[in-house]
Amino acid sequence: MHILVVNPNTSLEMTQTIREAAQAIAGDGVVVDAIYPDFGPESIEGVYDEVVSAYWTVDKVMSIADKYDGFILACFSAHPAIGALREALAQPVMGIMEASILHALPLGSKFSIVTTSPRWQPLLEEGVHVLGVGSRCASVRSSGMAVLDLEELPEAEVRNRLIAEAKRAVEEDGAEVICLGCAGMAGLEEGIHEETAVPVIDGVRSAVALVKSLIEAGAQTSKRNLYRPVDRRPANGLPSGIAKGYGN
Amino acid sequence: MHILVVNPNTSLEMTQTIREAAQAIAGDGVVVDAIYPDFGPESIEGVYDEVVSAYWTVDKVMSIADKYDGFILACFSAHPAIGALREALAQPVMGIMEASILHALPLGSKFSIVTTSPRWQPLLEEGVHVLGVGSRCASVRSSGMAVLDLEELPEAEVRNRLIAEAKRAVEEDGAEVICLGCAGMAGLEEGIHEETAVPVIDGVRSAVALVKSLIEAGAQTSKRNLYRPVDRRPANGLPSGIAKGYGN
Amino acid sequence: MHILVVNPNTSLEMTQTIREAAQAIAGDGVVVDAIYPDFGPESIEGVYDEVVSAYWTVDKVMSIADKYDGFILACFSAHPAIGALREALAQPVMGIMEASILHALPLGSKFSIVTTSPRWQPLLEEGVHVLGVGSRCASVRSSGMAVLDLEELPEAEVRNRLIAEAKRAVEEDGAEVICLGCAGMAGLEEGIHEETAVPVIDGVRSAVALVKSLIEAGAQTSKRNLYRPVDRRPANGLPSGIAKGYGN
Amino acid sequence: MHILVVNPNTSLEMTQTIREAAQAIAGDGVVVDAIYPDFGPESIEGVYDEVVSAYWTVDKVMSIADKYDGFILACFSAHPAIGALREALAQPVMGIMEASILHALPLGSKFSIVTTSPRWQPLLEEGVHVLGVGSRCASVRSSGMAVLDLEELPEAEVRNRLIAEAKRAVEEDGAEVICLGCAGMAGLEEGIHEETAVPVIDGVRSAVALVKSLIEAGAQTSKRNLYRPVDRRPANGLPSGIAKGYGN
Amino acid sequence: MHILVVNPNTSLEMTQTIREAAQAIAGDGVVVDAIYPDFGPESIEGVYDEVVSAYWTVDKVMSIADKYDGFILACFSAHPAIGALREALAQPVMGIMEASILHALPLGSKFSIVTTSPRWQPLLEEGVHVLGVGSRCASVRSSGMAVLDLEELPEAEVRNRLIAEAKRAVEEDGAEVICLGCAGMAGLEEGIHEETAVPVIDGVRSAVALVKSLIEAGAQTSKRNLYRPVDRRPANGLPSGIAKGYGN
Amino acid sequence: MHILVVNPNTSLEMTQTIREAAQAIAGDGVVVDAIYPDFGPESIEGVYDEVVSAYWTVDKVMSIADKYDGFILACFSAHPAIGALREALAQPVMGIMEASILHALPLGSKFSIVTTSPRWQPLLEEGVHVLGVGSRCASVRSSGMAVLDLEELPEAEVRNRLIAEAKRAVEEDGAEVICLGCAGMAGLEEGIHEETAVPVIDGVRSAVALVKSLIEAGAQTSKRNLYRPVDRRPANGLPSGIAKGYGN
Repeated sequence: MHILVVNPNTSLEMTQTIREAAQAIAGDGVVVDAIYPDFGPESIEGVYDEVVSAYWTVDKVMSIADKYDGFILACFSAHPAIGALREALAQPVMGIMEASILHALPLGSKFSIVTTSPRWQPLLEEGVHVLGVGSRCASVRSSGMAVLDLEELPEAEVRNRLIAEAKRAVEEDGAEVICLGCAGMAGLEEGIHEETAVPVIDGVRSAVALVKSLIEAGAQTSKRNLYRPVDRRPANGLPSGIAKGYGN
Repeated sequence: MHILVVNPNTSLEMTQTIREAAQAIAGDGVVVDAIYPDFGPESIEGVYDEVVSAYWTVDKVMSIADKYDGFILACFSAHPAIGALREALAQPVMGIMEASILHALPLGSKFSIVTTSPRWQPLLEEGVHVLGVGSRCASVRSSGMAVLDLEELPEAEVRNRLIAEAKRAVEEDGAEVICLGCAGMAGLEEGIHEETAVPVIDGVRSAVALVKSLIEAGAQTSKRNLYRPVDRRPANGLPSGIAKGYGN
Repeated sequence: MHILVVNPNTSLEMTQTIREAAQAIAGDGVVVDAIYPDFGPESIEGVYDEVVSAYWTVDKVMSIADKYDGFILACFSAHPAIGALREALAQPVMGIMEASILHALPLGSKFSIVTTSPRWQPLLEEGVHVLGVGSRCASVRSSGMAVLDLEELPEAEVRNRLIAEAKRAVEEDGAEVICLGCAGMAGLEEGIHEETAVPVIDGVRSAVALVKSLIEAGAQTSKRNLYRPVDRRPANGLPSGIAKGYGN
Repeated sequence: MHILVVNPNTSLEMTQTIREAAQAIAGDGVVVDAIYPDFGPESIEGVYDEVVSAYWTVDKVMSIADKYDGFILACFSAHPAIGALREALAQPVMGIMEASILHALPLGSKFSIVTTSPRWQPLLEEGVHVLGVGSRCASVRSSGMAVLDLEELPEAEVRNRLIAEAKRAVEEDGAEVICLGCAGMAGLEEGIHEETAVPVIDGVRSAVALVKSLIEAGAQTSKRNLYRPVDRRPANGLPSGIAKGYGN
Repeated sequence: MHILVVNPNTSLEMTQTIREAAQAIAGDGVVVDAIYPDFGPESIEGVYDEVVSAYWTVDKVMSIADKYDGFILACFSAHPAIGALREALAQPVMGIMEASILHALPLGSKFSIVTTSPRWQPLLEEGVHVLGVGSRCASVRSSGMAVLDLEELPEAEVRNRLIAEAKRAVEEDGAEVICLGCAGMAGLEEGIHEETAVPVIDGVRSAVALVKSLIEAGAQTSKRNLYRPVDRRPANGLPSGIAKGYGN
Repeated sequence: MHILVVNPNTSLEMTQTIREAAQAIAGDGVVVDAIYPDFGPESIEGVYDEVVSAYWTVDKVMSIADKYDGFILACFSAHPAIGALREALAQPVMGIMEASILHALPLGSKFSIVTTSPRWQPLLEEGVHVLGVGSRCASVRSSGMAVLDLEELPEAEVRNRLIAEAKRAVEEDGAEVICLGCAGMAGLEEGIHEETAVPVIDGVRSAVALVKSLIEAGAQTSKRNLYRPVDRRPANGLPSGIAKGYGN
């Protein structure tokens, strides 16, 4: 089984970290590769970044998609590349927000997402709404830090702020499960679990396990209506991966 | 890894069929056992049957639960034993309705459930509503057959009626994925897929794959609020498995 | 008119208290009997207790159901025995959570439920969701007390904590009506009404009045789909009341 | 106990019919009076009629309200007079749409409303939505007849068309209970029940039983927020009943 | 283009203020007239006031409606006159609550309404619910002031309390746009925008701009179902404007 | 006032047609320009096309955005470029799906969208859901034609099929207003209005009128949370318009 983990931002370092975490959970029988796009933002901080990163992410994935049995898009959001890849490919495609929520649902009555900057709050609330699981979501909580704070503050302070927010989600909002709302939070599970005593879900781990489960069950993306591929289009100056998705 | 498949009705034959299907999808590294309760209805046809079967199913599972890493309740419904076992145990517990929906969500925009008798329609609609995924459900469709028809009609007719209903779900309701709404429909996937060209999901296969994915990801049921176990209670004439859940 | 009040836990004392309250509101022309199951938990604190108590409650009721014109299930929850009895019987069956909400709706725009232990919060929220009246519910509030605190703390402290929670529901959540979220809270109406100045509803009183109103209006449970009784099944070692529901 | 039934249209004949039906269900111990406004439409066919009838209905009721323990507004809609009377008075006020839905909820999983002209369909759907019980409503169905048809067609044809619509609600929409969507349909319960085999609810009967149940339970309208009476206002040429509601 | 602004309360002063604000935004090519009803409350503080003011407002508008291309109802609520006028007339009719929400939606993910007395909170929440945009509404917040406080407190204090509430909506509830919840708040936009840095919407300005946009686009109210005019009715003592709506 | 109409597909002909229609509705005092992206699909048929067209559309708009007071994105969908432009710019940005719905809401109780190929059905349903106005949407109906049919069938047949679908929306689904679900349907309003007698809305016309109304009201996109621009990023090989949005 070959799984491709796609980091839609252009950080090589984060890509390697995610690949190692994914390989560890995937186990020996599964080959996990990881890629990142040739161009685009180093981190995804909003809708504009999503549009830019979606284009180059789809370009990169399409050029090598044939080799893989399933795909993971490692951005905690309803990233537009997820739908585009589902349309262009038959193999299962899983985003880490969707994966962490699918794993949270059978573990407790309500989940909360803990994320970093406040701008993600409406984006993730909209993502939860689109997934159609809004009534199971206790809250989406951000730490109230500005993006620059995240880079400049000491790691311990960032961590403590996220733990504080997770505790509020559990104690004030009724969350019974916490979803870590950023691929970059991997490794914080233990600390937050110790402080809150509820399951804490890392989306990359869940996405690997769920894509494996879909591949094992023989599942393929539906080609009825929403994800039916478009007909052939001319390449017309588009990069090769994008063009390939148009049948070139 | 040890997984216990629980058939909540008292049919030995169906239990064996489900166990074999579950073992096949689980693979070599996983031991799959299957049980059924000592007392209760031979099939589950409504709320009354659920209440009776939940009691004896919980009794049976509790007496041997320590040996297993995860549990599957093989009734396509929001069966009350699912919540009771989640409360009493820490290992993941998965119902086949919930599992088939969790697998359907990433494969298409809307799923439909195709079931047998019309009485299941409101029960399953309520179950989908409780799971909180109502906006993703195109329809719950029954074949309009009476329960007795199911036993007395030739298998081909039953099959054709279910295929006809699945086609209506796809063509009239906009379903992009079909969930088979009964553990006893395993084996119909291929036929319905051929006629509808959409993914068809068997809940037992999905439940095995998902419970494996939760166990691999190290997930445990939340013990905050809803699934916090009750304190010790006296056995007072209750059967031994039930009593064990009360700390005896 | 004969009404049977069913206390689904095994406390004789609570059964007698509820019966007296029910008789008082029912008036002279109505005979109110009360029963409790032969086995099961002394209080209902979660899903596991519900499964156990539902089985023995249904068994008890079925053995004497013919004598009654209507039934009240005196547990403030979406207790599974309610549906099972509706399926097996034609006479109206009313749970006290549903009754108190039906009475709250015409009295104000939003109601809150005030309950005891935090584990009831997700269960009652789910119950409100299943009833389909979630948009009218301002909040479900628990007092944050552990179950043991309830038994060990002085009555005045328990009462004050519940009053404090009711005031928060009114002042912070916008509740215009308070539903007492436990059969054992009967008698607190006056105190909470004095402190909050909003209508306070005791589910037992409302259930008696509503079952009377349904009986007077000649209403019977629908036998279409959800509550259609199952066909005859063999008794096979099941207790006599349960077996009677299977046509024995 | 004194109950006032308010017919908000100006038809004396319909007022008398409703009063007799209400008295019959109320029983001997209850005095039922009935009134209709001094001015306004002879039937209520839309929002414009509602605005006109609400004004004169409130005027009429306010002038004699002190004598009554509860009120029934006998128009099957979310008629604006209901809220105005709840605000001005403390005694329970019940509309017949709300009453028939409150009685339908415990009898089956889904109800449908069968009404006359198509213009009521969006109005009643909005009314159901405002009550907050949309997820329990299988459908609002009109017979597709024009208003003039209703008066000009033979009674048997009108009746047959309504029965046909009720059957469609049951067979196609999954309704388990039928609510008659017009005060003028009283008397059709039996015929529709015979053809559909589901409970058929007449709003006037349910409203009488429910107002009695609220009075018996000692309930009063909440005076918190929504239904808090306005402060005194000058009469300034307003009719005496309206002016009385302003403290004159 | 001729637009009629309808102030449904009987305050001449407020009518003139609103007319001037509306004319300023409408621009030179548009004639804006303003009226108020002959009878009714000086301010609208609840459902009772709505019923009285709707009657006299409709009466006033109907007598002069032919001269206008569109109408604005200048009460921040789901005032019943809006629907009645839509039914009786073909020209677009816009309420200022609806208008301010329609303008808020494209400017941010969530809006909040800031209003005065707490009784408006449930009324406006219901209004938002009826408009069907509840999931975009972050909160409806009142300043917690009694109606008398509003008249008696110094203007600066009223203003500061409203600004404080708007800041809470932005900082605690996630509002990205603020709608001023009362026609009388015109002029506070700047102050609240300076303190919150989010767009602040005055319903009168938005209603003028939106009615103009509908007139320019050639739009007329649908006469299918909900807003189909009633057939002719006799005048029977009704005031002339009301009677005109009945075809007299 | 300067308005830029953005056609996100690469068809010059459609761009010119849309520009002329927009200018006609905008009136003499408004300058309407129109552009299309340098690269990308000639029509937008799904999520993959959206991702490609969003990138090049944003690139094109960003390079000339300073000259305009407002923007219209002329694709009938929740196109990702809308959010990206709202984030990068302060001037109002309006999509034609959102605009046609905002205009439909005050004209009738329910609207339907009539579109071409069936794949748009789930995409538009999701778009309506994200806008938060699902309860006002009677249906999204496609004509059931394949994409190739649209190009190859005679215009009259395409037109007749769309009219047939609009009639079904009105007669079967209860639509009171029809939204034309494709920028290319401009000109069909009259024909569909004649056959259905309900208002028919062309999104381009509504978007022009609404953007004008927002500009006249002085509205700007909120910069709180969702649409807060990202901080400066390096250009790193990105095209000049995209790079400009990153502060280069």
